[in-house]
Amino acid sequence: MGNRSITAVKGFLAGAMHCGIKQSGKPDLAMLVSEVPATAAAVFTTNKVVGAPVVVGREHIKRGIASACIINSGCANVCTGKRGLIDAREMCERSAEVLTGRGITMQTGEVLPFSTGVIGHFLPMDKIRTGINALASNIGNSEEHGEAFANGILTTDLKIKTACTQFNLGKRAITIAGCCKGSGMIAPNMATMLAYVATDAAISPSSLRTAVWDVTDSTFNCVTVDQHTSTSDTFAVLANGLAENPRIELGTSAWRSFSRALESVCDSLARQIAADGEGATKLVVIHVTGAATDADARRAAMAIANSPLVKTAIHGGDPNWGRFVSAAGYSGAAMNPDKAHCQVGKISVFRNGRPTDIALADVQAVMQQHDVHITLNLGAGGKGTCRVYTCDLSREYITINADYHT
Amino acid sequence: MGNRSITAVKGFLAGAMHCGIKQSGKPDLAMLVSEVPATAAAVFTTNKVVGAPVVVGREHIKRGIASACIINSGCANVCTGKRGLIDAREMCERSAEVLTGRGITMQTGEVLPFSTGVIGHFLPMDKIRTGINALASNIGNSEEHGEAFANGILTTDLKIKTACTQFNLGKRAITIAGCCKGSGMIAPNMATMLAYVATDAAISPSSLRTAVWDVTDSTFNCVTVDQHTSTSDTFAVLANGLAENPRIELGTSAWRSFSRALESVCDSLARQIAADGEGATKLVVIHVTGAATDADARRAAMAIANSPLVKTAIHGGDPNWGRFVSAAGYSGAAMNPDKAHCQVGKISVFRNGRPTDIALADVQAVMQQHDVHITLNLGAGGKGTCRVYTCDLSREYITINADYHT
Repeated sequence: MGNRSITAVKGFLAGAMHCGIKQSGKPDLAMLVSEVPATAAAVFTTNKVVGAPVVVGREHIKRGIASACIINSGCANVCTGKRGLIDAREMCERSAEVLTGRGITMQTGEVLPFSTGVIGHFLPMDKIRTGINALASNIGNSEEHGEAFANGILTTDLKIKTACTQFNLGKRAITIAGCCKGSGMIAPNMATMLAYVATDAAISPSSLRTAVWDVTDSTFNCVTVDQHTSTSDTFAVLANGLAENPRIELGTSAWRSFSRALESVCDSLARQIAADGEGATKLVVIHVTGAATDADARRAAMAIANSPLVKTAIHGGDPNWGRFVSAAGYSGAAMNPDKAHCQVGKISVFRNGRPTDIALADVQAVMQQHDVHITLNLGAGGKGTCRVYTCDLSREYITINADYHT
Repeated sequence: MGNRSITAVKGFLAGAMHCGIKQSGKPDLAMLVSEVPATAAAVFTTNKVVGAPVVVGREHIKRGIASACIINSGCANVCTGKRGLIDAREMCERSAEVLTGRGITMQTGEVLPFSTGVIGHFLPMDKIRTGINALASNIGNSEEHGEAFANGILTTDLKIKTACTQFNLGKRAITIAGCCKGSGMIAPNMATMLAYVATDAAISPSSLRTAVWDVTDSTFNCVTVDQHTSTSDTFAVLANGLAENPRIELGTSAWRSFSRALESVCDSLARQIAADGEGATKLVVIHVTGAATDADARRAAMAIANSPLVKTAIHGGDPNWGRFVSAAGYSGAAMNPDKAHCQVGKISVFRNGRPTDIALADVQAVMQQHDVHITLNLGAGGKGTCRVYTCDLSREYITINADYHT
């Protein structure tokens, strides 16, 4: 299936347009709609400062049903107080009203609102109202509609990020497809900056919720571009049941098949976020093993992934592996340097407390490739592991973020 | 006193030279010596991966007496196993032997060793041995000797960092003077990358130790350039008693005067580290107030200071204050956004959960100055506060660290 977009899933319509929020003229309003009410689950940012759409989204998702997502880019509707909440609710009301008018009946509470962009500004609701009216008449289920949606949610991303997979449950083929955005302000913690997955699987709300949380932890929560956990992170999954499979229940083999397929989609999306991180020229995969616990492994992997010294060494293709080892050392994870083992690609560079006898030129050659794998066994004597995706830190990141005008 | 160097203190000799470690030909070996045995205290990095000199320094400081510091730059002697320890010990032995030969009698255990530079390489001990022999004959107490010492400990620093103060205890004038290095790999945690303070005060070992720990917490531990806690951080204070004041004891008013003076020196050095951070074009001072505890305030201030999005916004002079507020939001500190208050310079930008009615152009003008002050009241209802020094993140940081060859 590869990159087929979110409209590959039966019964899902999508689309995007420019409603006037972004001065660039790029798409800034997008909509995803299930033709029938869908079971839904979502995870949201753990930031204590959250956008108004996160507050409203948390309310709406409680019932476990959602039929539409309405998303604007260019303005995050964060730090906007009561007016921000009123605006986020109106986005849902207006969407439900217009879609119901088109024959896709739904309540306001079945719509999830999302906003991404600059913090501290109010939404231009006049433009958004007009936009929602127009967009609801222009959603569709073609590949082009799906790609337009994936494009409409972007901010500083250079590429759309989509993933799709299929698997069989008995005689029924189940499709899972998704897309996401995220390039800067990326260190998801319980979710990532706007990811949507649609599926035609029939699945119970609690089974879906558990699968979504499990998968988030090993995929979106293991990506970092710049350690800045966003105020708007949300990952939502809508399952409309049109595959007509027997309803998937928690803990069954069908549930495990569904979770594995969902994980493959999310893993692909997470990897695409890191590869398209702001200013990124490389994809970096950090594997930490030999940790006392998985939590310790995650601490060490994130410390390595977030260190600007690590990221710049990788940008320069410089075999300065002491930066990898020392970042793990300050991460708070238990570590025994005398038993630790660090590899760059497949080359051992540090073992038994001292440098190995390798030629740095060989390490440099590995570090100059596009995909750089760093493996560190902490020597703590445990079985904890974690894999984190990140990218390098380039001058372009500075250019993008120093000149990102508010 | 301002910037008078470490040799302003009675009975201290210093000097530096190029012994051949750095290919650039810049000074790479430095020595600080008290003519009489000095009471000493030191704090070291909390990184779990530490350099051999940190291991040896911790052993030697236990007795509370030190008469000399021997420092090389260009190679950190970290991740070097047993051979690294042998080399660090030999630096002390050789220094003690040569200085004793010059009439300044001392034991090996009275010398503290320090190394700073690249991780994962062995010290070129032939060059260091020859260097120590030569340097011991070229130390002195002139201002030039003090400046040479401050210069000899630098790596990527652009400026020497020195501070000096005097105060009176009864009829005795006490001098405290110090210098430090640190520009990259700076997020001290119990110490900073090589700081030395000399004083002629007479003070008991335990009183000195307590003063040093207290002061470290509010000064060096509140600086960050790139959140990468070094493997070699050490801050050492030598007090040789030549001021002939009645010995300072813990908890007395003399001790408080001493601690205040020590803090003023360390505060100045800490501020100089931030201002000379790698690639820095600005000094940034983050004040967090209204936190539940001081620890929470520190968490929030450090999250703001370490966010690449915050640092690039400041680099670009962009009034994107949402980045400051959202960084506190993911710091783990208790926070109530509806009661929080964010100021840039003296301008309120966010209050009562929403943007204030200010012109962003006014905020931009403040952010384009060299010194940028950000104040955030977390609204958590407590009295916790913290002030952190940091700098902006520029393209030059990337250039320095992507091209720093190992």
